[in-house]
Amino acid sequence: MSSEFGKLLKVSVFGQSHGRAIGVNIDGLPAGEAIDFDELYIFMSRRKPGKDPLSTARREDDVPVFLSGIENGVTCGAPLCAIIENRDQHSSDYAALADTPRPAHADYTARMKWNGHADMRGGGHFSGRLTAPLCIAGGIAKQILARRGIHVGAKLSAVGTETDIPFPLQPTREMFDAVAKKTFPVLDDACGERMQQQIMNARDASDSVGGVVECAVIGLPAGLGDPMFDGIENRLAAALFGIPAVKGVEFGLGFGASLLRGSENNDAFSAESGSITTKTNRCGGILGGITTGMPVTLRAAVKPTPSIAQLQQTVSLSEKKAVDLAIHGRHDPCIAHRAVPVVEAVAAIVILDLILEGNHGLI
Amino acid sequence: MSSEFGKLLKVSVFGQSHGRAIGVNIDGLPAGEAIDFDELYIFMSRRKPGKDPLSTARREDDVPVFLSGIENGVTCGAPLCAIIENRDQHSSDYAALADTPRPAHADYTARMKWNGHADMRGGGHFSGRLTAPLCIAGGIAKQILARRGIHVGAKLSAVGTETDIPFPLQPTREMFDAVAKKTFPVLDDACGERMQQQIMNARDASDSVGGVVECAVIGLPAGLGDPMFDGIENRLAAALFGIPAVKGVEFGLGFGASLLRGSENNDAFSAESGSITTKTNRCGGILGGITTGMPVTLRAAVKPTPSIAQLQQTVSLSEKKAVDLAIHGRHDPCIAHRAVPVVEAVAAIVILDLILEGNHGLI
Amino acid sequence: MSSEFGKLLKVSVFGQSHGRAIGVNIDGLPAGEAIDFDELYIFMSRRKPGKDPLSTARREDDVPVFLSGIENGVTCGAPLCAIIENRDQHSSDYAALADTPRPAHADYTARMKWNGHADMRGGGHFSGRLTAPLCIAGGIAKQILARRGIHVGAKLSAVGTETDIPFPLQPTREMFDAVAKKTFPVLDDACGERMQQQIMNARDASDSVGGVVECAVIGLPAGLGDPMFDGIENRLAAALFGIPAVKGVEFGLGFGASLLRGSENNDAFSAESGSITTKTNRCGGILGGITTGMPVTLRAAVKPTPSIAQLQQTVSLSEKKAVDLAIHGRHDPCIAHRAVPVVEAVAAIVILDLILEGNHGLI
Amino acid sequence: MSSEFGKLLKVSVFGQSHGRAIGVNIDGLPAGEAIDFDELYIFMSRRKPGKDPLSTARREDDVPVFLSGIENGVTCGAPLCAIIENRDQHSSDYAALADTPRPAHADYTARMKWNGHADMRGGGHFSGRLTAPLCIAGGIAKQILARRGIHVGAKLSAVGTETDIPFPLQPTREMFDAVAKKTFPVLDDACGERMQQQIMNARDASDSVGGVVECAVIGLPAGLGDPMFDGIENRLAAALFGIPAVKGVEFGLGFGASLLRGSENNDAFSAESGSITTKTNRCGGILGGITTGMPVTLRAAVKPTPSIAQLQQTVSLSEKKAVDLAIHGRHDPCIAHRAVPVVEAVAAIVILDLILEGNHGLI
Repeated sequence: MSSEFGKLLKVSVFGQSHGRAIGVNIDGLPAGEAIDFDELYIFMSRRKPGKDPLSTARREDDVPVFLSGIENGVTCGAPLCAIIENRDQHSSDYAALADTPRPAHADYTARMKWNGHADMRGGGHFSGRLTAPLCIAGGIAKQILARRGIHVGAKLSAVGTETDIPFPLQPTREMFDAVAKKTFPVLDDACGERMQQQIMNARDASDSVGGVVECAVIGLPAGLGDPMFDGIENRLAAALFGIPAVKGVEFGLGFGASLLRGSENNDAFSAESGSITTKTNRCGGILGGITTGMPVTLRAAVKPTPSIAQLQQTVSLSEKKAVDLAIHGRHDPCIAHRAVPVVEAVAAIVILDLILEGNHGLI
Repeated sequence: MSSEFGKLLKVSVFGQSHGRAIGVNIDGLPAGEAIDFDELYIFMSRRKPGKDPLSTARREDDVPVFLSGIENGVTCGAPLCAIIENRDQHSSDYAALADTPRPAHADYTARMKWNGHADMRGGGHFSGRLTAPLCIAGGIAKQILARRGIHVGAKLSAVGTETDIPFPLQPTREMFDAVAKKTFPVLDDACGERMQQQIMNARDASDSVGGVVECAVIGLPAGLGDPMFDGIENRLAAALFGIPAVKGVEFGLGFGASLLRGSENNDAFSAESGSITTKTNRCGGILGGITTGMPVTLRAAVKPTPSIAQLQQTVSLSEKKAVDLAIHGRHDPCIAHRAVPVVEAVAAIVILDLILEGNHGLI
Repeated sequence: MSSEFGKLLKVSVFGQSHGRAIGVNIDGLPAGEAIDFDELYIFMSRRKPGKDPLSTARREDDVPVFLSGIENGVTCGAPLCAIIENRDQHSSDYAALADTPRPAHADYTARMKWNGHADMRGGGHFSGRLTAPLCIAGGIAKQILARRGIHVGAKLSAVGTETDIPFPLQPTREMFDAVAKKTFPVLDDACGERMQQQIMNARDASDSVGGVVECAVIGLPAGLGDPMFDGIENRLAAALFGIPAVKGVEFGLGFGASLLRGSENNDAFSAESGSITTKTNRCGGILGGITTGMPVTLRAAVKPTPSIAQLQQTVSLSEKKAVDLAIHGRHDPCIAHRAVPVVEAVAAIVILDLILEGNHGLI
Repeated sequence: MSSEFGKLLKVSVFGQSHGRAIGVNIDGLPAGEAIDFDELYIFMSRRKPGKDPLSTARREDDVPVFLSGIENGVTCGAPLCAIIENRDQHSSDYAALADTPRPAHADYTARMKWNGHADMRGGGHFSGRLTAPLCIAGGIAKQILARRGIHVGAKLSAVGTETDIPFPLQPTREMFDAVAKKTFPVLDDACGERMQQQIMNARDASDSVGGVVECAVIGLPAGLGDPMFDGIENRLAAALFGIPAVKGVEFGLGFGASLLRGSENNDAFSAESGSITTKTNRCGGILGGITTGMPVTLRAAVKPTPSIAQLQQTVSLSEKKAVDLAIHGRHDPCIAHRAVPVVEAVAAIVILDLILEGNHGLI
């Protein structure tokens, strides 16, 4: 198995939700990169639970301890390992669940894969908590990219049936920064209010709701990525499906393009600005798996939080009979907004890995 | 760059549309597998152009020549290389395009990536023609899987705005075979008629139209796949985005799940059949990246064919000015239906690669 | 860069000699494997410094802390991360060395690779200390293999010009255990005395001495490994050169075979025992990169410890002029005997990774 | 299994000795590289059999057909596939061998690995003939490297007990060219005469003899390669063991270093030339897996040709009893001199793969 991705930049995530620590090992970071720890913690805090009524009441301090790879605040070339110790665990909440897998969780599949040996307390290795170390890696990647003029930004595209306006044709770093500072990451705050209402309605109904995250990467030159199976879409998709609850990934118009005619979907080339651009960007800045030089845009579908307070049908694995399940504990009625920085993190790691290759003149 | 995928089973596709030959090298096939060449050719013929008015008038014989890896019709363990010689090429159709990249094609991005050295005649290495060798590999993988009770089937889910009924909760091998035999791969033939009408309408308007392919894999045990970045979703998505024109991939309800509440999306477990199943399969047979034992289901969005006969806006790269582009030659008004066997092929390769690992008792 | 190896079992080593901690992340361990921690610590203690006058006076407690992957003493399938905190560091010993690279160390090359940002205190990421986490991974792999009847043993083959008798044609687990218990790991203890005398002579001369480690793996079935570039030799060699100071690797007679005639080197097959064996094992149990079923045997050459107390010639990198260098601190006059368990560890990891593939019926 | 190697540059070798064709697919070559086909054929002819009395009487024309990846003599970025059709096959020579594995060949191990399905006619996929496509890839890599000032040269270091003088501290391109032009690739032609006499003596005794190949790479900057498991030694060794008959690989003094004291083995740094060099190069231009900027030097041990005309002991696999084996057909009494360009080829591919990474400013 492999909780790892990357080619020249390898990111390995480890830990179980209620184990001693969770963490990440990053092998292949360029040396000599100063890490702005304040900026990193601010980035990480964007995915933290417990900061508003929309999220779980759990508190995670998530203070990373850097074990290696950094010397005097600067990457030294050796693998960077950072861990977060686990403290605030209520394993008893989950004790009864061992025999009764929670619907839409990995309880059952992990049990089958690991022949009953999986540590599934709090979701174990499949917990959304494992996205915290991902954000350490991604936050560092974002800083390294920013120094090279490449910026990654994300926001909510939808919560349930409520849809935000999309990023414009040419989003800016300032726009990314502005949305990152918001409590609720949308462009249209009125829409954001309605989204939050949907989340609270779901919570009040002992239920949860899904959403969609939109992400854009600006500053990439044309010509990045490889044909067929190692294109920028392949690599981003492979990594994005590593975020718990992501069930769909699309680039540019994605599934929307399937509804259109070629004349409606093709992006006309333009030389107006002096350099080659496209007048629209329905292809998401990617043709043939390779960047066009326009922003790379993608959307990731996040399913509704599986853990809901309503009574659900499951089975007793030992007795092979139906039982009703009541999940206690603290759970987010929506995780899509907390997934926003995680999508940024994953996208940043993939892009940094990509530009470490070859002669792009970026590293 | 890497026109290759797979971990223990490595599939490398090579060739340019108008080069001497296209082909595939498959490294890691189990030995002792008899290849049914008739079945393979029938499978390959499902993606062939020119067989109906909906497709390009080009004729591809696509007769593979097996250079290695097969002895007396049986895999011998050594890498299997098969090639298809190129014959019916009209390079002159493309000669004028060198300086004027076609919108929504890889002409521009490949040129940027390879500093003007890309062989883009007929789309070069990015041509849909490269899916023929993929189908050789996939057709072989399908046969090996079938012997182990694993079957891969696909059909059109949508063409433009027209939508077929989805596969049922438990599709069967017979259903897959039946749809594979149809000229137009849908379950509801009346809907198929309307889809074909949409395609002909697009063609008559010198335009093209997109679509969606739906795929299911049956016969997989629970417990296949790995957490986070090497799950069955990650691996399938990474490979599926290698099919030209695919711009979105989703599993189970995918983006549809983002619209739902948890109580609507969670699949209840059931022990009714004596073994553990889920009553619904909105998760597409995958939780935490690992199979549940229910059918794995996915959908891939195919953009409208970029090459349309209408005049389009592009630029002269040498003169850096706007020019109008008229694409001549023979082009499919829709490629979604031809992509159906290609999606099957890619899914079969990924699944075969996966079961070569570990102790699943399947190989 | 990549301080990682493995295909299905990925072992990532991290840490710098004088950083906060060193450690290892192991991704892909089979679940349900009980870890005998006492046995693990005994294995790890075999590489520890300071236990006899032949080694450095440094004390390493090397108590691993398991952060993840183990639940109630049993592997749970999730990645296993273990760390060793660094305590006994004398960084001041190395402070003066920053500008004057030590001959035969990685000081200069790491500086060039990482543009002056390498943390080379105590050898940094290149320190022999990083073999401690390797031994954690290897000790665990050894236990998992032993349960499947596969045993890995190693001993000194030579120190300087003094050569031990080689393992017999069919070494046994008991032989491996017996040599592992010795203070000085050789078969012929009289030879071991002479080796130790060579080491003490070197030390007394403010010098160091090299050696050769011999390793054997028993219990492997015939047919493991892949042709050409993924054979058992390729994989073992690639990993063994990851052990600091290893400068040569050979299988079976290795370089000795180059001196022989075919009639002297070919191993005759035999059916005498009822199963197929070879009467001799000059090929080291490997033909065509694939196991014969006989013991896999290899030897790894270890160069003399680079750090010696004698005055040496180096340069001041800042002033680009020659300077004399006196290395202070505590250094092993020979590291070959401490490398013995490290070679075992690496071989065990590679073999475990290999048997996780396919249908060998071993996992 | 995997007859492939490389990270960004992937080289896949396919074919069986008596199959339809053998070949190589190279994925990741830089675009825009003109191929000098005459130079390539001259390079390939260096490994050809039948050109002198020391080699097998078989004739291989080995004319490669380029199927893809080259347009107008220049690499176009897409994967380059080249094949060599098989013609001069005497399968009947091998027919009797199916049940009686040849000592020191892969006949038995391949049979075990592939459950009796291996195509072992003429050695099948394990035949030395498969080094011809390797030389296509390596010959191309050598040309690309040469344009960047990096040159790879090799020669015989030993045949049996006869040893040539080694390359000097700073070998030159001219020296590489001169030795490549010789019928027998040594520096000291008198020694070469004695080597050839050893080979003819072995042949006259219906026997064969082993040898050692020495290789050097010049023009590499300091700082190439990665620590621990992805260093230049790891990568070169992993690939070199893919050459049939190679049983040992060492860098610099290699096993010779194990005999020395640190004061004898350490290479003093020098600033005399204005840049940093080492006064000696016992480390083979590699410290910590990373280049020093001095020539990278290595030696590969080649075992004596397994096929000898003498009667040998083997077994009948079907009857599980001892039988005598007489190998007919045409076989080289020594393959070490033919392995010289193959070692160059493999080294060139590994080095080219390496410099495609990161910001070395070489690609």
